[in-house]
Amino acid sequence: MIILGIDPGLRTTGFGVIHKQGAKLRYIASGTIKSGEGSLPVRLKVILDGVAEVARTYQPDYAAIEQVFVNVNPQSTLLLGQARGAAICALVSAELSVAEYSPTQVKQAVVGTGRAVKAQVQDMVARLLSLPGLPGTDAADALGVAICHAHSRETLTLIAGAGQGTTTAARGPLAGLRMKNGRLVG
Amino acid sequence: MIILGIDPGLRTTGFGVIHKQGAKLRYIASGTIKSGEGSLPVRLKVILDGVAEVARTYQPDYAAIEQVFVNVNPQSTLLLGQARGAAICALVSAELSVAEYSPTQVKQAVVGTGRAVKAQVQDMVARLLSLPGLPGTDAADALGVAICHAHSRETLTLIAGAGQGTTTAARGPLAGLRMKNGRLVG
Repeated sequence: MIILGIDPGLRTTGFGVIHKQGAKLRYIASGTIKSGEGSLPVRLKVILDGVAEVARTYQPDYAAIEQVFVNVNPQSTLLLGQARGAAICALVSAELSVAEYSPTQVKQAVVGTGRAVKAQVQDMVARLLSLPGLPGTDAADALGVAICHAHSRETLTLIAGAGQGTTTAARGPLAGLRMKNGRLVG
Repeated sequence: MIILGIDPGLRTTGFGVIHKQGAKLRYIASGTIKSGEGSLPVRLKVILDGVAEVARTYQPDYAAIEQVFVNVNPQSTLLLGQARGAAICALVSAELSVAEYSPTQVKQAVVGTGRAVKAQVQDMVARLLSLPGLPGTDAADALGVAICHAHSRETLTLIAGAGQGTTTAARGPLAGLRMKNGRLVG
């Protein structure tokens, strides 16, 4: 199955796509969607179209998105909420069910502790997916959400089947895909 | 020209559609989109699909949406932001440019003072559009945003044309359209 993870943000939305077969995880793609400098509606459209294009390109079976911290600045919280709303709209428009995970759950799944720092998430994501280099922080967070969902689904499957399994890292290329103004480039 | 006004909310999103010809305003439709009790992504999809259906049905030339207050509760602010993001996404997906007005601007345009209370907005919206009864508060706010945009555009036109004009109320039916779970009913 293919899992799309999203790390939402108004300026930069990270995305990460992984393939899960049994207990094996394989990297497919990751990158960022930059919303540019336009008005809020224009920037939300860039996020909407960008996430929709990622979904169209990689045809994920599942989507997962990170829950966001409320900011000390209420206006920032409102802007972040609108950006996250746009990303979720793109996912549900692609007929995907959308799971939500807190940053703590993602860190727990990827690093093994909910108190990990960003650099640890980047490092463990690179290890788990056998990446030749560190992904950027936004892409790493998005891949982390996808990994978290893979583990979460595995746990559910194990409970349902009463079987046993471990998640091991699998080899995969770092395609290094990026998005700019909602278009896939490179 | 046809103007669609939106009063965004997670639970209830109000919409109002008016027709403006010269200085005359005519009521076309108004109602609410209720997002129901599902998960957040499901509720955002109801808003997205609901606003998209309104845009498809009434084919507005312009869209305007109310800016929202940041709530004392940051989580509520975040939820409201996501709902507003979904509504904006539906508008920009319909290729509409989206104007934004603060509640104060809307009250100023409709009632003549930025400190008006909701009941005054309802009353003046009903008078300006010659409605046979008071619209609900969410629909009234949405119609108010549309009226605000009509006035704002008229002002811009007057400045551009150095002409004169007044906005007078025109007759119009109160169709009393409502939406439930994203579908137009009744």
